[in-house]
Amino acid sequence: MNIEPIRWQTDRLELLDQRLLPAEERYVALHSASEVADAIRDMVVRGAPAIGIAAAYGMALAARQARPSSEAGESWQTALAADLQQLANARPTAVNLFWALDRVRAVLQQGGPVAERLLALARELHREDADHCLAIGRHGATLLGSGQRLYTHCNTGALATGGTGTALGVIREAHRQGRLAHVHVGETRPWWQGARLTAWELQREGIPFSLCIDSAAAQLMARGEVDWVIVGADRIAANGDTANKIGTYGLAVLARHHGVGFMVAAPTSTLDLDLADHSAMPIEQRPVEEITRLGDRPLAPEHCPALNPGFDITPAGLIDALVTERGVIEAPDRERIARHLQRDPS
Amino acid sequence: MNIEPIRWQTDRLELLDQRLLPAEERYVALHSASEVADAIRDMVVRGAPAIGIAAAYGMALAARQARPSSEAGESWQTALAADLQQLANARPTAVNLFWALDRVRAVLQQGGPVAERLLALARELHREDADHCLAIGRHGATLLGSGQRLYTHCNTGALATGGTGTALGVIREAHRQGRLAHVHVGETRPWWQGARLTAWELQREGIPFSLCIDSAAAQLMARGEVDWVIVGADRIAANGDTANKIGTYGLAVLARHHGVGFMVAAPTSTLDLDLADHSAMPIEQRPVEEITRLGDRPLAPEHCPALNPGFDITPAGLIDALVTERGVIEAPDRERIARHLQRDPS
Repeated sequence: MNIEPIRWQTDRLELLDQRLLPAEERYVALHSASEVADAIRDMVVRGAPAIGIAAAYGMALAARQARPSSEAGESWQTALAADLQQLANARPTAVNLFWALDRVRAVLQQGGPVAERLLALARELHREDADHCLAIGRHGATLLGSGQRLYTHCNTGALATGGTGTALGVIREAHRQGRLAHVHVGETRPWWQGARLTAWELQREGIPFSLCIDSAAAQLMARGEVDWVIVGADRIAANGDTANKIGTYGLAVLARHHGVGFMVAAPTSTLDLDLADHSAMPIEQRPVEEITRLGDRPLAPEHCPALNPGFDITPAGLIDALVTERGVIEAPDRERIARHLQRDPS
Repeated sequence: MNIEPIRWQTDRLELLDQRLLPAEERYVALHSASEVADAIRDMVVRGAPAIGIAAAYGMALAARQARPSSEAGESWQTALAADLQQLANARPTAVNLFWALDRVRAVLQQGGPVAERLLALARELHREDADHCLAIGRHGATLLGSGQRLYTHCNTGALATGGTGTALGVIREAHRQGRLAHVHVGETRPWWQGARLTAWELQREGIPFSLCIDSAAAQLMARGEVDWVIVGADRIAANGDTANKIGTYGLAVLARHHGVGFMVAAPTSTLDLDLADHSAMPIEQRPVEEITRLGDRPLAPEHCPALNPGFDITPAGLIDALVTERGVIEAPDRERIARHLQRDPS
């Protein structure tokens, strides 16, 4: 596959700058947690699993930086706690970030010199996510027939994870198994993750696809050109309500209206059991300039009022299947999700 | 209002170049039908009623050009017929273009020197459309309660018509009557008619609005922030099936799902009674570069395959009200539309 959005190099973290793709493949080198937090907020790296992994590496950088003054004891702990908080503040919706930082916190609570252990943790989360992507792909593909026409939104691939991807992991596996006829890729305004990133990934691998604007999805479904909509997730409540990239909810309503399957593919680290349902889910409001400008080019009048929520909520009732690394939950609800999590990881 | 997308100046037609708005307000001067056909195809002017009006002026230009050789008789007719065909070929979906050219044809069939009569016809169609916009606005507003939150798509305003607009005519009238709380404007990819044109019109008049990406509409409806979706139309079949800007159909499905009203506002010249339903409606496929690039800036990888239909079809069953200059047709169907057209124009 050879797509490495996150790579550790001896003493620094390198991130493939996703703001520049597909025009340019350039890595930025990061040396501190604070730089990693900036990179997450500015979307150098994005995708729920990927930002969790990047944050873990960020804490490995923090621990290395903190080492010289490690004799200071208390202040070392304080510095790391501040770094951790900065990473946690980078973006609010994707729970994988907080999940990864919880794992970091557990290592920190063991005390002592933790630089090596934090780097080992980051590498473990990274590798684990790659395994989870493969498992999600296998489980998701069991739901698909042959000659499938799929629709996907945003980017949930190698660029968004530590492996082959979540929704895109399912799509890659379907392609590998010869079950895939075509993928429709919604461009995913305002950040064009579909046009810039998913199209780039699919093109590199010769997976048959075409790009369309987000609002063309309905007509494609009406014409019978979509069998399944497959998307990722940024946070899933205990009852299955799912926050994901803005536009996902509309696709779920359209899929239900047209009798098209709607699949959410995400690792169990995306489940937030502290939330009973969507009502308390934090939804990031992004800068309106993401809508009103493209680089230097205005897309709207000056001072144009705009709303730019980064995510929306798909109620569990519209989800036909939630696929994790542990398997498939059809028609997910509180009880089925709880039972799913009691299973041994496969 | 002072928005004049189409203006006749002594010996030429001037069109406000809508490709440059809102950054620049520049008119282009046109001297022949062929130049007008190019301007319609290249979207210097767009909007179903506006392109009908522009085409009529185009034929007035054609007749002036043809005049010097008017002694040639037969060849004069042939030249005008070729100009008319060129205008008819400019864009396929909006029926108002063909309706206007039918009116031109009727004048041509009277024979003799027609330059003045064709200019008079163009002016009449222009003025008539302004009247129709006001009537559509009045009729549409009768369906609205107070404190309305509306959602609109594309641009259906002064820039798209000869007057205050169709859907935007209703919105303007609602504002004038004090019934309007807020307008949500979908940016309308790929051409940004919402962001560039509708936002510009609303901002000039101090109508309260905010811009959002097209795929944010579903979440706005789920949160109860929309009372009515109001859109225009490019062609309406005898049974009420409606072709309009891509994205309209999805909004209709979403509106129905959320119990939000869905109103189509269009002059009766948008009705194509030759089509029983949508099945034979011509849908323009636009160049994929409209999706994959913005000016010089690539939005997708090179050679990215893409689909770019300019329109979609909303079946009549999803339309709560069709509003024309003659009044309101609730739950439009073949019979109600036929009865509506038998009424005296009001």
